Amino acid sequence: MNKARVEAVSDGVFAIAITLLVLTISQPAHYDHLAHRLGHNWPSLIAYMVSFGVIGIMWFNHHSMFTHVERVDRTFFYLNLLLLMTIAFLPYPTGVFGQALAQHEGAGTAAVFYSATMTVNAVCWAALWLYTATGRRLLAAAFPEAQRRTATVAFVMGGVPYAVSIGVAVANPYACLAFHGALAVYYALDPIGRRAARA
Amino acid sequence: MNKARVEAVSDGVFAIAITLLVLTISQPAHYDHLAHRLGHNWPSLIAYMVSFGVIGIMWFNHHSMFTHVERVDRTFFYLNLLLLMTIAFLPYPTGVFGQALAQHEGAGTAAVFYSATMTVNAVCWAALWLYTATGRRLLAAAFPEAQRRTATVAFVMGGVPYAVSIGVAVANPYACLAFHGALAVYYALDPIGRRAARA
Amino acid sequence: MNKARVEAVSDGVFAIAITLLVLTISQPAHYDHLAHRLGHNWPSLIAYMVSFGVIGIMWFNHHSMFTHVERVDRTFFYLNLLLLMTIAFLPYPTGVFGQALAQHEGAGTAAVFYSATMTVNAVCWAALWLYTATGRRLLAAAFPEAQRRTATVAFVMGGVPYAVSIGVAVANPYACLAFHGALAVYYALDPIGRRAARA
Amino acid sequence: MNKARVEAVSDGVFAIAITLLVLTISQPAHYDHLAHRLGHNWPSLIAYMVSFGVIGIMWFNHHSMFTHVERVDRTFFYLNLLLLMTIAFLPYPTGVFGQALAQHEGAGTAAVFYSATMTVNAVCWAALWLYTATGRRLLAAAFPEAQRRTATVAFVMGGVPYAVSIGVAVANPYACLAFHGALAVYYALDPIGRRAARA
Repeated sequence: MNKARVEAVSDGVFAIAITLLVLTISQPAHYDHLAHRLGHNWPSLIAYMVSFGVIGIMWFNHHSMFTHVERVDRTFFYLNLLLLMTIAFLPYPTGVFGQALAQHEGAGTAAVFYSATMTVNAVCWAALWLYTATGRRLLAAAFPEAQRRTATVAFVMGGVPYAVSIGVAVANPYACLAFHGALAVYYALDPIGRRAARA
Repeated sequence: MNKARVEAVSDGVFAIAITLLVLTISQPAHYDHLAHRLGHNWPSLIAYMVSFGVIGIMWFNHHSMFTHVERVDRTFFYLNLLLLMTIAFLPYPTGVFGQALAQHEGAGTAAVFYSATMTVNAVCWAALWLYTATGRRLLAAAFPEAQRRTATVAFVMGGVPYAVSIGVAVANPYACLAFHGALAVYYALDPIGRRAARA
Repeated sequence: MNKARVEAVSDGVFAIAITLLVLTISQPAHYDHLAHRLGHNWPSLIAYMVSFGVIGIMWFNHHSMFTHVERVDRTFFYLNLLLLMTIAFLPYPTGVFGQALAQHEGAGTAAVFYSATMTVNAVCWAALWLYTATGRRLLAAAFPEAQRRTATVAFVMGGVPYAVSIGVAVANPYACLAFHGALAVYYALDPIGRRAARA
Repeated sequence: MNKARVEAVSDGVFAIAITLLVLTISQPAHYDHLAHRLGHNWPSLIAYMVSFGVIGIMWFNHHSMFTHVERVDRTFFYLNLLLLMTIAFLPYPTGVFGQALAQHEGAGTAAVFYSATMTVNAVCWAALWLYTATGRRLLAAAFPEAQRRTATVAFVMGGVPYAVSIGVAVANPYACLAFHGALAVYYALDPIGRRAARA
């Protein structure tokens, strides 16, 4: 299995997961007072937009990482598959989160669930990078050693803000949603991928 | 991230969104008097066909635009992602619109919701073009300057008919659906993409 | 828009529609007597398999046709889009057909609906071919003239068995399902695509 | 139809099926006691993860097999389509299995249904390989004869563990789920594909 194929396969999962997200916004059960109902459902819309952004940005960073990967092997394939699983899974906690907020019930639990999923995702990113970069196992020769160390720290620490988001979830689910949105914007503006790209 | 990749990624989202649309047509709750039930559900079918046409035509125009783009950068990627979000989102207002018309309840609200989504979509198109074309930032050298100005006016004005469709939605939701169908046909026959292509 | 792109785009819609079909088989409402419930739902399974075969075979024939297409234009794109719409739509009548048979209610109507969808699909195939082949508009130079006439007759007559299936649907919905399965097998064994390929 | 295309088409179905799996985890019906509800639903999550792994590993093995295929023909295409059908179908038994375990009702039946689907899938793998390898019909010249015989035995016997899983399903549905997880890990570590790759 060559690198281009793994990339194409990953692109497919990213594209499908990001487009499937819309199914997490539940259609109204009834259509009287529709404006009120749709308005009431705004957290589902925000959760949709946050997760859309999250997946889109991960897509970008996935490509950035792949530009520095020389070749792939079986272990890389399965670590990447694990990472893709946490991304393909995201529509589920997104739907639960949006619904719980809209129904004013279980929002704390739903926020913890969403944040925990993102934490596991960050761990998968770290595992993929560590496997790739440790001893420069699969890394392109052109990738500078100093950047490798910087990126390794960034990936290993990548789970920290998401672990923090679990705490935020317990405190306030709305703040937690905003926190995830802010993290997405942060990673869009100055992500690991960018730092790596600067290398 | 190179241009071919962004195009492939966009193609994926277009293909999935257009095919997912079928899930917006809800299966009958009961199967007695099925002919009557299916017939009663005709607005969902029309809404499906209009949105299928809308996404298909945007797909065409997306390609047309890309033929005039020299290269892409991070900002272009995110503006394109934003555009894709409004397209991937379309199945939701489509389902709501069709259902509201079929149930004779909330149709005005649903028509406004659909039209507002299309207006936001038009704004995203304009943003992507303005970023690409202003100062010829990412534009191919072969693209004539006069055509750039024409296309810029067309994209900036692109939101106007959709803003008008919000007014039509308030007046009559059926007329609004017909209006969106007519706009799709218009853009299929003489779209911005075509004018750009003539350049 | 070049030919390879239209093919890639079409492949996407085929792949998604064929995989989405599984969502047309409704999960059991209750889980007691599950063996009985799953067994009772066998028509949904058969309808799934028939439509899976139908889409898969059309996929094959779509490729066969494209090997004889020299270039594509805007009209071709839109006729192809129309064809793709009838294919992307197929999960809906498939779900309705399977459910109606399983519930022993509305099966005749559902069979007519399914058959009518297939008839429209056949008309779209004919339209795409006629546009391509009339005056050899977009046809590859290597495609023999005699074969062009044969294929044209085959495509124009392609709707006939599906129109007949509407009659079968009225007579007996189970026979209609079997008839569609048999047509799929026939097209798999000796399709228009094959005849064209022999050319 | 050339080999690269059949591979691309197969990749599409793999990517979509693996990403659609998330829709098999049903959203909570109510949001009170959400932590309890989500926890109660753990079998759906495990079933999701097992099927995700199963499809991912098959994807890998599919590619491995294709590297040894010299060319494809119509029969190969349809046998591959049949294989893809059993994979695209997997979300349905996965959802039924997870739900039945979560509801403590019909779990035995659901486990048999899941195991039977996997058995049919193994038969399709064997059929595809036998058609490819018998008399080296479509096999690459570089593929060693000794390996061909080994792989043929492995594919023909491939259905055995899944047939065994039907027995396990009857005895204990939880053990059956664990058994499928273990089989997935086994095929990830030492699959037919690997043995073939060693050749």
